[in-house]
Order: sequence, then C-alpha cells, then structure tokens
Amino acid sequence: MIPLGALALVLLAAPTEPPLLGFTPEAAQAERQLETQFDENLKAEELGAWMDRLAAHPHHVGSPWGQKNAEFLAEQFRSWGFETRVEEFSVLFPTPKVRVLEMVAPTPFKAVLAEPPLAQDHTSGQQAEQLPVYNAYSVDGDVTGELVYVNFGIPDDYEELARRGIDVKGKIVLARYFGSWRGIKPKVAAEHGAIGCIIFSDPHEDGYFHGDVYPKGGWRSDQAAQRGSVADMPLYPGDPLTPGVGSTADAKRLDVKGAPTLTKIPVLPISYADALPLLKALGGPIAPANWRGSLAVPYHIGPGPARVHLKLEFDWSQHPIRDVIAVLPGADQPDQWVMRGNHHDGWVNGAADPISGLVAMMAEAKSVGLLAKAGHRPRRTILYAAWDGEEPGLLGSTEWAETHEKELQAKLAVYVNSDSNSRGILGVAGSHSLERFVGQVARDVQDPQRKASVGERMRADAIVNARGDEARKDAWDRKDLRIDALGSGSDYTPFLQHLGIASLNVGYGGEDDYGVYHSIYDSIDHYKRFEDDGFAYGVVQARTTGRMTLRLANAPVLPLEFTDLADTVGRYVKELDKLAEARRTAAEDSARRAREHIDLLAADTRFTFVPKPVDDPVPYFNLAPLSNAVARLERAAHTFDTSASASAPALDAGRRAAVDAVLLKAERSFTRSEGLPRRPWFKHQIYAPGWYTGYGVKTLPAVREAIEQKKFDDVEPAVRAAAAAIEAYAAEVEKAAALAGGGTAAAAP
Amino acid sequence: MIPLGALALVLLAAPTEPPLLGFTPEAAQAERQLETQFDENLKAEELGAWMDRLAAHPHHVGSPWGQKNAEFLAEQFRSWGFETRVEEFSVLFPTPKVRVLEMVAPTPFKAVLAEPPLAQDHTSGQQAEQLPVYNAYSVDGDVTGELVYVNFGIPDDYEELARRGIDVKGKIVLARYFGSWRGIKPKVAAEHGAIGCIIFSDPHEDGYFHGDVYPKGGWRSDQAAQRGSVADMPLYPGDPLTPGVGSTADAKRLDVKGAPTLTKIPVLPISYADALPLLKALGGPIAPANWRGSLAVPYHIGPGPARVHLKLEFDWSQHPIRDVIAVLPGADQPDQWVMRGNHHDGWVNGAADPISGLVAMMAEAKSVGLLAKAGHRPRRTILYAAWDGEEPGLLGSTEWAETHEKELQAKLAVYVNSDSNSRGILGVAGSHSLERFVGQVARDVQDPQRKASVGERMRADAIVNARGDEARKDAWDRKDLRIDALGSGSDYTPFLQHLGIASLNVGYGGEDDYGVYHSIYDSIDHYKRFEDDGFAYGVVQARTTGRMTLRLANAPVLPLEFTDLADTVGRYVKELDKLAEARRTAAEDSARRAREHIDLLAADTRFTFVPKPVDDPVPYFNLAPLSNAVARLERAAHTFDTSASASAPALDAGRRAAVDAVLLKAERSFTRSEGLPRRPWFKHQIYAPGWYTGYGVKTLPAVREAIEQKKFDDVEPAVRAAAAAIEAYAAEVEKAAALAGGGTAAAAP
Repeated sequence: MIPLGALALVLLAAPTEPPLLGFTPEAAQAERQLETQFDENLKAEELGAWMDRLAAHPHHVGSPWGQKNAEFLAEQFRSWGFETRVEEFSVLFPTPKVRVLEMVAPTPFKAVLAEPPLAQDHTSGQQAEQLPVYNAYSVDGDVTGELVYVNFGIPDDYEELARRGIDVKGKIVLARYFGSWRGIKPKVAAEHGAIGCIIFSDPHEDGYFHGDVYPKGGWRSDQAAQRGSVADMPLYPGDPLTPGVGSTADAKRLDVKGAPTLTKIPVLPISYADALPLLKALGGPIAPANWRGSLAVPYHIGPGPARVHLKLEFDWSQHPIRDVIAVLPGADQPDQWVMRGNHHDGWVNGAADPISGLVAMMAEAKSVGLLAKAGHRPRRTILYAAWDGEEPGLLGSTEWAETHEKELQAKLAVYVNSDSNSRGILGVAGSHSLERFVGQVARDVQDPQRKASVGERMRADAIVNARGDEARKDAWDRKDLRIDALGSGSDYTPFLQHLGIASLNVGYGGEDDYGVYHSIYDSIDHYKRFEDDGFAYGVVQARTTGRMTLRLANAPVLPLEFTDLADTVGRYVKELDKLAEARRTAAEDSARRAREHIDLLAADTRFTFVPKPVDDPVPYFNLAPLSNAVARLERAAHTFDTSASASAPALDAGRRAAVDAVLLKAERSFTRSEGLPRRPWFKHQIYAPGWYTGYGVKTLPAVREAIEQKKFDDVEPAVRAAAAAIEAYAAEVEKAAALAGGGTAAAAP
Repeated sequence: MIPLGALALVLLAAPTEPPLLGFTPEAAQAERQLETQFDENLKAEELGAWMDRLAAHPHHVGSPWGQKNAEFLAEQFRSWGFETRVEEFSVLFPTPKVRVLEMVAPTPFKAVLAEPPLAQDHTSGQQAEQLPVYNAYSVDGDVTGELVYVNFGIPDDYEELARRGIDVKGKIVLARYFGSWRGIKPKVAAEHGAIGCIIFSDPHEDGYFHGDVYPKGGWRSDQAAQRGSVADMPLYPGDPLTPGVGSTADAKRLDVKGAPTLTKIPVLPISYADALPLLKALGGPIAPANWRGSLAVPYHIGPGPARVHLKLEFDWSQHPIRDVIAVLPGADQPDQWVMRGNHHDGWVNGAADPISGLVAMMAEAKSVGLLAKAGHRPRRTILYAAWDGEEPGLLGSTEWAETHEKELQAKLAVYVNSDSNSRGILGVAGSHSLERFVGQVARDVQDPQRKASVGERMRADAIVNARGDEARKDAWDRKDLRIDALGSGSDYTPFLQHLGIASLNVGYGGEDDYGVYHSIYDSIDHYKRFEDDGFAYGVVQARTTGRMTLRLANAPVLPLEFTDLADTVGRYVKELDKLAEARRTAAEDSARRAREHIDLLAADTRFTFVPKPVDDPVPYFNLAPLSNAVARLERAAHTFDTSASASAPALDAGRRAAVDAVLLKAERSFTRSEGLPRRPWFKHQIYAPGWYTGYGVKTLPAVREAIEQKKFDDVEPAVRAAAAAIEAYAAEVEKAAALAGGGTAAAAP
C-alpha cells in the first residue's frame, strides 16, 4: 500500500520523470520510490565510523588487522540480512627481508627507505605493523652497476636513449613513477638488458608541484614512497603460481622460480628524498625537456658516474587471503545475479585506498538490506564482495572468479566495481552496453557542491577537458554521456576480461589533495582533512552505485542498450584505421628523413646523436571485416533499441526471462577461449590492459598492439578474430530483439 | 689579372655553380672569387683577441670602458681603411641609487640583489665598475603591499587570476621572466592596478632545469639576475625624451616626469635565490600547472600572506652615447648604401651580448677593408656601425636613424643587423624581399660541425621543429628557406619599422649553454667555455654576413625577389582569416558555455571560481582588400621574377641604376606616415613588435591587434591601410619590372 504522501509525489512526478531503461513507466515509478527510501538510509557518520574501524591499523594481505577486518565485514553483512561467507585462498605473497640501496660512487650514500611517523597523523607511528616500502613480486637480487635515468621507463624512452647512443645493458635504471603502470618499468628495463630498477616518486607528478606537502597540505612529502605490485599483470593477474585456476589449498602450483609474472630483475621504489642524491650524482647529457621533473637539479641521463648497489631478499611464503561474500537472493530471478565489489586490503592503513570506497559500498549494502527487510526484496540476486589481496595483484577477485567461473558465466549479469573514492567528479568506465544506463543514473543523482546532477558535472568536465574541437563537440552534443573503456588496476579485470561479464568501475575524485597513494600517510587523518571531509562524496557514491545495483536487480528486463555500444566500437575501428595511417606516414617520413640526413643535420652538435634506423614500410590492412561486423551490430542495435527495448519490460514473465537469458550473457560473445596473442588469460577481444601500459586500456587490443608493435603479419588474423566476436555479439542482440518481438532474427535461417 | 690557379677554379666551378640573384653569370663568378679571398682574411684568433679587449671591463652606457671601446673600434675601422667617425648623442639613462626589496610579513627577509664574484671567472670581481641588478626606465617608487604571483604577467595570466577572483589592485606582483619581453610585465601589471612589479628568473626557463649552473656548467646560477630595459618600446624605442628626433645636444626634450615610455610602477629584477623565500611565503590557491616553474616549492598565487616593501630611486642624468660609424664609399654607386650594424655596449662585461656578434662584424669589416685595399672596392657604399646604448632601448641606432632619416631613406638599400652569436644553427629574420637572397647565402656557407651547408642545417632544423604536418611539409618541400619576420629586440627596429628600410637580423645559436644573459657572468671565461669555443661560429657568422654585405654591395642589380614576399604576405592574410574565425568560434562557445554553466559545473569545488563574462560576438570582416592587394603583388612579383630578374643584371648601367632606384626604396611602400594606431613611431604596416609581446612580431599588426584586442571597429580601417601599403609595394614592383624590360606597368595609365 502506498502512503498518501508518496502517492501525491508519484502523481506529481509522473508526467515529468524521464524513463528508466528496462522498466515500464509503472515499474519506474516504484523504483524511484524505492530509491528515495534507499537514500534515506545512508548516513555519512556511519561511513566515518567504519573508516575509523577499518583503517585503524595496517591491513595488508596476511596481517592480523586484515583478518579482523574480514571478520568484522562478514559480521556487518550478516547483521544487514545477507547470507555471508568468508572464502579463503592461499597465495604467494612475498614480503621483504633485506632492502639495501646505496650509492657506491662517486660519493657514498645510503637510501633511507623509510617513512617517518608524524605527530599530526595518529596511525603513522604503527611501525611494527607496517609493511616497509617495496614492490611486490620483484625477484631477489644483489646487483651493482652504473645508474641510468630512463624517465618513465616506457619503450619510447629507450628510443630516446638509443638516439643518444646510451645502452642500459648491465646497468641499473632509475625511472620515475607515472607514464605507465609501475610493473611496466622493470619489464621494459629487463627487455633492454638492465640488471636492476629503481622507481622514484618525482614531485612533478606526485609532490610539491601540486601543492603543500603532508602534513601542511595533502601532497606527497619528500620521504614518502609508493609501494605497489610489479607482477606482470598484463600477462595475467592473481596469484602468480595459479594462472587460470583458483588458488585453493589443493590447487596445482607453478614453481616460484621462473613464475612468469615475477619480474626478471630486482625492483625497489624510493622517495624523492632518496632519489635526489642519485640524480645529483648523474653525469652525461641533460635529459630531454619532457623527461625533467621538479627536483631542483639538472636531470642528467648518465650512465654514471653514479654507481649503485641494490640488494633485495624476500620471504616467499604463502599467505591466506579472505574474500567476504554476501548474498541477498532475488525474489523473482534468483539465478540472475548482480554483483558489487570493493577490496578491503590496503598497502598500509589504506584509508582512501580502499576503505573510502568500501565504506560507501557498506552503506549501500546496509540500505539494500534494510529495504529487503522492509519487504523490498530485489527481483534478482545481489552479491556484495569485499575482496582481499587486490593490492598485490587482484588476488582475491581473480582467485574467486577463477574458482567460480562456470557459475558466474551462467548467472552473473553485471559486475560493478569500486575502489578509492573522494571529492570531485563522477568517473565511470566499463562495458558500453551499459552506457545509457550509467547516464540515467548520473542524471538522477545530485552533486553535493553544485546545483546540478553528477551527470551534468561529468558532461561539463568532458566538455572543458576535451582534446580538440571534435571531441568537444561530441561531448557537447551527444545524447548520452560517454564512459571510458576499462584497462586494468582494480577488481573488475577478472570479471570483464577473463569471464566476459559486463562490468563497470565507479568512483568520484579529482577534487582532493591525494598525495599519499600507497604510503603510510594514506590514513584516516589525511582522508578527513584532504579528501572527503564529512563523507559527502562517500554518500553520493553510495547513492550512485546503489541506484545501479537496485535498477540492475529490479528492472523487469536487464537495462542494456546497444546503439551506444555499436557507436563506440565503430569509433575504435576508425581509430585503428587512423593509427595505421599515422604509422604509415611516420614510416615514410622516417625513410625520407634518413635519406636526406635531416635528423643528423638538425641534431645539436654538443651531444652524441645516433640516427634512427629506417622504419619498415607499414602495409595497408584489410579492416573491412571489422567495419562489416560493426555495421551488423549497428543494425541489430537499431532494431532492438527502437522496437524491442521499450516494449520488452511489459512482456509476460516467461518472455522477459527469455530475453534476459540472452542479455545476461551478451558480453560473453566478446570473448574468445584462446584469449589474446601471448596472453590467453585475457579473453575479451574489445578491452584489455595494454602490454606496455599495464593499466591503460587498449581497445581491440590484438589488432591495435600488432600495429603498434610492428607485428604486421599478426594484424589481419587479429582483425578476423575481433570481427568474429563482434558478429557473435550482434547475433545475440538480433536474438534478443526477436525474442522481445521487435526483430526478425527468429525468422532468419 | 687572374692567377692561373684561380682561373682553373673558375673554369671548373662555372658549369655547376648555381646562380646568384642580381648577378650575371660572369659577375657571379667574380663575386665567388672575391668571397674566397674574403674568407681567407678571417682569423678566429683575432675574434678572440678582440673579445679579450672589448669585454675586459664593464662597458655599459656612460662607462669609462664603453668610451674606450668606442675609441678603440674607431681606430680599428680607420686602420682597415674606413672613413670613420664617432657620433655622440645625449640620452636619458637612469642608474640606481636605492634598491630595497624586503619581505615584511609573514617572516622578514631582505633580498640580496647582488651577484657574487667567482674564482673561475676573472672579470666577475670588477664590482666597482659593474652596474647593479636593475631594470632601466623603471620609475622611482616606495611601495608596500601584498604579493601576488602572476606567472609571466601577460594579459592571459590576468584572465586566469580573474577566474579565481584575484585582483592585483594595490598589490605588488611577482612575475617570472619569459613569456613576453620584460617591459610588458610592469605595463600590464600597472594596467591592472598593481603598485609594484618584481621579475625573477625561474630555473625552469633560465637555470638548472637546462643543465649544470655556472661555473660548473653554463646555466644561470641561483644568485644571477637579469638586468634589462623596461621602457615601453612597443610605443617607441630610443631616448624616452626625444621620440622621433635625434637626441642631439640641442634637441627638444620631454620632461622626465611623465615621459610616455617610462613604467607607471617601480620594477626590479631578482635572482631565483631571492625569489624563493617570496614564493615560499605565498598562500592562496595553487597556481595553474603551466604557471609552475622549477623551484622546489608549490607555486601559490597569493595574495599574501607575503607582504613586500619595494623601494627604488634612480639617478635620472643625461649620459653621452657614442656610435662608431665607418664608411667605405662605393666605386660605382656611392649613393646606394648597404649597412651592417652590431651594438658595442653591454649590461656588464657583455662577452656574448654583444661582443660575440661585434667581433664577427669586425672580422668581416677588416676583410672587406683588405679587399678594397687590394683593389676590390665595392660597387655600392658599405657602412659599418658599432652602436652604443642598445641595451637600455636601442638608443644609439634609433637616435642615429632619426637624425639621418632623410639621407637614409634616400640611400640605404638594406640594413643587416647582428647581435650575440654562438654555436648552432643559423637564424635569419627580416624583410621577405630578401628571402631568396638569404637562402643563396646560406647555401654557400659550410657548417663547421656537419658536412653540410648552414642552409641545409637550417632547413633540417625547420623540418624537425615544424609544428604540425602542414608546416613540416612546407619546410620540406618549399624551394626557398623561410625566414621569420622581425619584431623587435635589436638595432634593426629603427631601420625597418621606423624608416621602412629592408632589413635582416643574422646570427648563429642554440647549441650553447647560455645561461648568463644580462648578468655579470656574461663574460669572456663563460663564452669561451660554454658558447663558441675557438670562435668557429664567429668565423662562420663573418662568412655569412660578409657574403650578404659583399653581394648586396656588388650585385649589378639589388638582389631582391618578390614571389617569396607575396607568398609570405599571403600567408599572413590567411592567418588573419583563421584568427578571426577562431575568435568567432571561441566567442560562440563562450556564450554557450555561459548559458549552460559549463565552466562552473566543471570547476574544482575546492577553489573560488568566477565565471568568465560572455565574449561579444565577433563580426565577419571584409579582408578582401588585403587578398586583392596580395593578388596584385603576386602578379607583379611573377612578372618581375620571371621576365626581369634574370635579365636586369645584364642591362646597361643607366637602366640598372633606374631599376635599383626603385628596388632600393621598395620597402618604404610598406610604411605609412601616420604609423600604427596608438604608436605613430612604428610606420611599417607588415611587421611590428606586438603591443603585448614587446619583442615578438605581429605581422599585419594593425589588423591583427585590432582583432586580438577586440577593437572590432578598428579592423576594417586597418585592413584598408595595410592593403593600400601592399598595393603601393606592388606598384613599385610593377615599375621595376617595366624598367627592367619585363613588365607592362609603364604602359599602364
């Protein structure tokens, strides 16, 4: 029975409320009512109290507080009415025994490798419980060599070194953070023959360049360093010893020695206070202008005269990880699942990363639980996961997804991930079949700072920060908000890229002074002063992901949409065409430049200059299979979206279930059991983290990376594989349209 | 009589030598012979010895060593066979009596304002003779106020401040050098109501960001500051008290008080050591990313809490300046003049600026004198000028040009300027009627470092550093090298922009570690270690400008060419069209952004944001008169260059003289007696320094600045004026073509 006040609201609201994808107008009204109630259960002070509890001590993999947090979380979920279990896995998780970095020439210097406690930060003194500064999955090593500064340490940087006649073979490289995911730096260094890798946080990317440093301001101080994994995650994430299978107690394991995702050379992260004496001691040519950071020294490349000694030894033990899994069975369709997840492990206290995101998910889950207790059980089953071991390499999510692969592929419709959250603009990335759905949610959530929806702010941000006139016009005029594609860097990866489950990653940020990533200063005190004072954006995150969860769980038909998807994939194909053309022109230019000695003649005569070898000509590629597949997807999408999408939610339950059965698995069509070239774990043909970016996405990855990496013979096979995946997806959309009564696919042979 | 060896050379060379503009093939052969002899007289060791003599002591305006240098130079020119005189003017040249800069809050700090002597630099200890660090033509002042960091202090920077709700009224601004000529900074600050201006050298533009600092390397050290003039030179250069007339002893003078080119507020330059405590003490929002330099602090904008006290008092005396003028009368056409110039005054010892350029000019002049003594008198009269008072404001050249205006307009064909010179790539800028001529000279001079001509290196540099594909293609494929247009910053300005005399500025550079501009460390020791060790590029500069001087003086017909000119002016017109269109689109975007509150919605909620007022719509302008004028110039150029240029040098002497009489004055057609809007001293309608750039050129300045400064009513009158100038130039080219027998203009009504 609808109370009178609510009825009045419904009557008033009805004529002006925009539609909700997957809902009939009547169901949409009920859903909005529910969301109003949902919002009322969200309490900022609860988010703060949970953070105070969860980030009170370091809670990395294998820590006592990490175990306590898992138990606490399970207890909370149970108290909110969820069927809750803690699933344990056993993973390889190295911790440091020996860490030595010293300069042996021209002047001795021993790196401090420690972050001092601060009076203004009440958890910073918990040294006995803190993991020291290190990079997980670095191999052991004891190396001494000349130092070379390699900028971000990405492939292009080694090209620049080659132009200067500088080789890193047998040397130790000094790379700065940013420019790629950190694990790429030792990988590329080792490919070029380096024997060790040091990674420092330059204040230009992460320090005083951005504002006052902690504790005066929120930015990285001189002795704070960035921990983090350097496993070769673009090959596969999760436990390095159990690729593709859950690392249960009895799983078959690879040998630690030679495990494919461990680094080939020892790696250590350092602060900018530790980096400064090393940089000062380098000689050789001055680095290119865009290699120079914000330390008050000339950035020389070397090699030498600085020589450094790097010695690392790790304890290569197995550790337990504990995923907390909470289930609220659906009332109508218990075998159609919607899942939310956020990790609970941190590198140290991890107030921002991940507790800020976790507490917002807890508020959401508590409210969903309260609604269920009040009689509003979701139509579909909702799962909440608090993952362990995300920091070392998406361990908890990957091992769980690998363990439950079959059931997840059968039942899980959508996975919605979150991680750190703070003040700012909404960021959403993920499967483009959910793009319109995301826009509707963003439209319906108010920003706490401006009189506008979070979607309006997201759109404004896209307009202001658009690169180029075309992108600006698109941001301004497109009907739906665009969402980015997902690469890697959080727990959506096993769901999206290994299992082919439509996924989203959701969080607010950008208006914080977040200079404490993976340091001991990612703390409660820092978070409350510099990130989301009062948890206003924690609550708005809960409103956002809560609407996503509830709408996905309650919609009469799953709220997928395909014209935006076809539009987006069509853009990727056009990008490939432009990429090939740009590479072709560059190769032609390079040949002409070499013939005419242009670069040699222009080169500064103060420095060594080694002309670039001439690029091979870039052939023309047949991208037509991709264009044809996209065209078919566009037609199917048009049929579904114009003649089935609106009518489907009003069908009888049986026909809706039939449509849903297709929609639920549509994203699986984008996968291929062989996976991508060189990395079979990554099955998705549209989205993958880049081989040389690590987190950054490469769309249509097999084709794009074959062109980028000049493996021209691999391009057309990759085109055919990706085109087949898109065709398969289009066939599913045709089928869904036919089942919903809008299409003609059923009549096709 | 030609010696046998030389004859063989001529015979061998003849079939393959490319033509020389203005020469018959026979005359070209003789000219090349002469140039070979010319080169043989150039001795690197003489350049070094002259630098040792001229830069031995500080030699600024009014200094004892400056007077000695003028006398020494006159003596040298006389000894080389030139009719030499020293012309004196009396100019306003303020020198500091009181310089105080101190921070009074939040913590006291007194700026050092002094450059320490160095053991490694033998002239750096001549403190009694050095001018202290100051900006010439700052007004006296005694002000105290809150400090605001304004980045480069150009108009766009104040737009950024306005978006943050920050006003400089009643405050003292702290600006960094670069981004504009220094005199723009106090000008714009005063326009916005600031009461004082401090300018510092940021290591990002001028210091350790570029390499090791002096004396370890060549780059600016922490206590070195940049002296320099801040007179409003875009209004008029030269003595502030005698605009438009020579500042002879009896000239009518303005009152010092209120002289239009003095600053409106006190200004002082400081080192980065002195700037650091001030920047550290600033609060308020963090500056935009592209405002942040390389000091190891967050760059806050303020205002305050830093408050500073700036007190400046100057001695406003008149001082004598001494131009050394050396003349070698022409054998055939004594009333057709070719002039070379380089200043001799420095801010302190000025080894690079200007002695490096001056000694190359001396070598050139000595060799020209030796050739004359050996019987190779030039056909036309050659003048060499060593200018005094360039540093405070082009005083020597301006006063001399104003004094001799009538004779120069009647006789001077081309003025070729030089200034500092060092190792690197040839840079030439100037009148585009000389573009092909410049390319021929660059083709004929060998680079000392690479096996290529300096022209090939210049072209390679243009290709490598081209901005965008279109520019790269142009640099690659255009028949002639492009030269830049001249703004201001050296002694060509009175000749080109006041008198309308075709001019060039020529020098090598870019492969030096030149971090000592306008400091006491611009010294002999620095120059020899870090700029042009062994004076190889001093000699190559003499070869380059010597060829220019000799070809201009000896060519049977003046070597001007007009298709390159028409092409270049045509590009400027297209740029204006694009500029107007870009401004129009920007205004439309700005209106839409305001309507939809885009910027407000995207703005970071941590900071104050004041939306930008909506721009007025930009009307469509009639640029057709310019296009028509350029079309006429193209036709005339085509006629001259295809049917007159090659045949003219073979005409009889009388007809050549008639053609030359037109060519000599062609550039005058680009001037207008009323000058540019707001600045009648600047008469040239094609090239001028920008009102808000100071040195940087604005081509078609009246039109371009009217659009940029949103004075839309002024655009079309400016279009008509510039078009009339181009039409007048085209008429001269038509006349020259007709006189040379190739055109039909003589038959026109």
